[in-house]
Amino acid sequence: MRATVMYGVHDVRVENVPDARILKPSDALVVVTRACICGSDLWPYNSMQPNTVGNRMGHEFIGRVEEVGSEVRTVKKGDLVVAPFAWSDGTCEFCRKGLQTSCIHGGFWGGTKLDGGQGEAVRVPLADGTLVVLPVGQDHALMPSLLTLTDVMGTGHHAARAAQVAPGRITAVVGDGAVGLCGVIAARRLGAERIIMLGRHSDRIALARKFGATDIVSERGAAAVEQVMKITGGLGAHSVLECVGHGEAMLTAVSIARAGGAVGRVGVPQEASIPASLPTFFRNVTIAGGPAPVRAYIQELLPDVLSGAIEPGRVFDRITDLDGVPDGYRAMNERESIKVMIKF
Amino acid sequence: MRATVMYGVHDVRVENVPDARILKPSDALVVVTRACICGSDLWPYNSMQPNTVGNRMGHEFIGRVEEVGSEVRTVKKGDLVVAPFAWSDGTCEFCRKGLQTSCIHGGFWGGTKLDGGQGEAVRVPLADGTLVVLPVGQDHALMPSLLTLTDVMGTGHHAARAAQVAPGRITAVVGDGAVGLCGVIAARRLGAERIIMLGRHSDRIALARKFGATDIVSERGAAAVEQVMKITGGLGAHSVLECVGHGEAMLTAVSIARAGGAVGRVGVPQEASIPASLPTFFRNVTIAGGPAPVRAYIQELLPDVLSGAIEPGRVFDRITDLDGVPDGYRAMNERESIKVMIKF
Repeated sequence: MRATVMYGVHDVRVENVPDARILKPSDALVVVTRACICGSDLWPYNSMQPNTVGNRMGHEFIGRVEEVGSEVRTVKKGDLVVAPFAWSDGTCEFCRKGLQTSCIHGGFWGGTKLDGGQGEAVRVPLADGTLVVLPVGQDHALMPSLLTLTDVMGTGHHAARAAQVAPGRITAVVGDGAVGLCGVIAARRLGAERIIMLGRHSDRIALARKFGATDIVSERGAAAVEQVMKITGGLGAHSVLECVGHGEAMLTAVSIARAGGAVGRVGVPQEASIPASLPTFFRNVTIAGGPAPVRAYIQELLPDVLSGAIEPGRVFDRITDLDGVPDGYRAMNERESIKVMIKF
Repeated sequence: MRATVMYGVHDVRVENVPDARILKPSDALVVVTRACICGSDLWPYNSMQPNTVGNRMGHEFIGRVEEVGSEVRTVKKGDLVVAPFAWSDGTCEFCRKGLQTSCIHGGFWGGTKLDGGQGEAVRVPLADGTLVVLPVGQDHALMPSLLTLTDVMGTGHHAARAAQVAPGRITAVVGDGAVGLCGVIAARRLGAERIIMLGRHSDRIALARKFGATDIVSERGAAAVEQVMKITGGLGAHSVLECVGHGEAMLTAVSIARAGGAVGRVGVPQEASIPASLPTFFRNVTIAGGPAPVRAYIQELLPDVLSGAIEPGRVFDRITDLDGVPDGYRAMNERESIKVMIKF
């Protein structure tokens, strides 16, 4: 079969790889129908140590079940399924509490040992715990929004939850990528009336406004902090969603949080420590978040996607086939595209 | 009047200073009957830049109201009152939410401009928002426990709240000082059945056990982490109270937190950043806490102190008069004493 493999910085190839197949009784074999390129794929795209074996890429996909192992009970051949960006058993202490990204027996797609979503098929371990059956056909009009349930919509939702978004709490979103944009949707959905988007790209800002952002701050660093303070009467935002991951974004996020407020971080941290320990401490700012337990959120968010109440699929502004994936990485890296969908 | 003044490292003196007096209509003049030396007083004791004016010391006191300004309504001459370690108006946005340590018009005792608790009298700004009247006489047997409501008991309680202590959640307390010991009391009070104390001093450990600690870990650093992991089946504690403030303690705290768990930090941070951003992120560990809104907690904890349900006053193991304060600093600094009470 053919799949996306990354060998080093800016070196993404679509190649022949061994066919995905069932290895364990709890596996399912899924033929991918849609996938995407993630903002987090750009971290290795810009920093990967060269590797002769290559890393299989992609952690966001929807597909058709082709075959299941003998122990699989909840999905069957022919089902259209959505996969979260982490696979999980659904039964361990953490899964039972809805923190499937810490599943004791789970893991993440791709790398040197597992299939990734940016390929024709995927062996899905622990299929019962991992996959959710979709009640629509594979070319349904809602496919873009359903596809965001694999990662970015659930991740934006996690940021909003970790930041304790609720009615009456002024919310700020740091980062205008797909996750930040989904964070705006999530904040609005959880009742935030005032949503400040910190971002600089006009296309993304326009989309943020459509999703519910009420204020835009396009400055950076100290100037951005000053601007948010001006908007919030000098007090800052009650809830801050950190959707970037680099040090300056995190510093901005904790700096604009109101005393007693919370920062929900979902951008993969690019620094070894969290900045501004003292100001954060003295203002009793909570820092929460991490990899979103998207598996739990699929079930929470699916009804709102199916009803059209939320439309996270609008973050996709480019569609490609598998061969176009390397150029999709380039386009996202150069901010030509917010998020690329791969249609098989 | 006489009061404690710090001039530099290990240079604490008891001196004549200008008499405390009413300056504003919202002030009260309080004659101090009991005060204490705080673990946090040891930070400047060991690091203060020399200062010719000197810093007035002490932020934990109980006293008798001697006079009130014309606007004061809730306390009157003769009342015995307890003061939290921060003064606050009781009416601003933050006070109304119970975060009095972020009061817009409030502040902290001592320094170069205000009286401190380690002196014969204190001008109390914003007396209505700050002081709580005690329903006992000034030499009541519960005085030690009541005195802990000024800081350490409320601070231990804040750590426990920030760490989300609840029944069924394994709790670990980093630091066996007075705050850590009060953290054990608070964790037990909030329903924790399993409480792991990380500490090394035999007298403090004995007290921690009396307060409810079920396990003691006396190793440090990586060895302490390993030991907590062994005790918790390799998963760590759900709730971790960080009651020290230096970098190694914070690193230990975040390292022993279970995935999805929370660290409540109340030790004043001695480092500019929070360590272990990535492991904390990948395990979805929440970091919360800061200066405890003790003013709110006095009302919450007072009934349990008055009923004898909690006995935080047992953290005091030395009593002195005002003249003995410099030696009290020395004794606490040399770990000869857990906490020193000053009786006037």
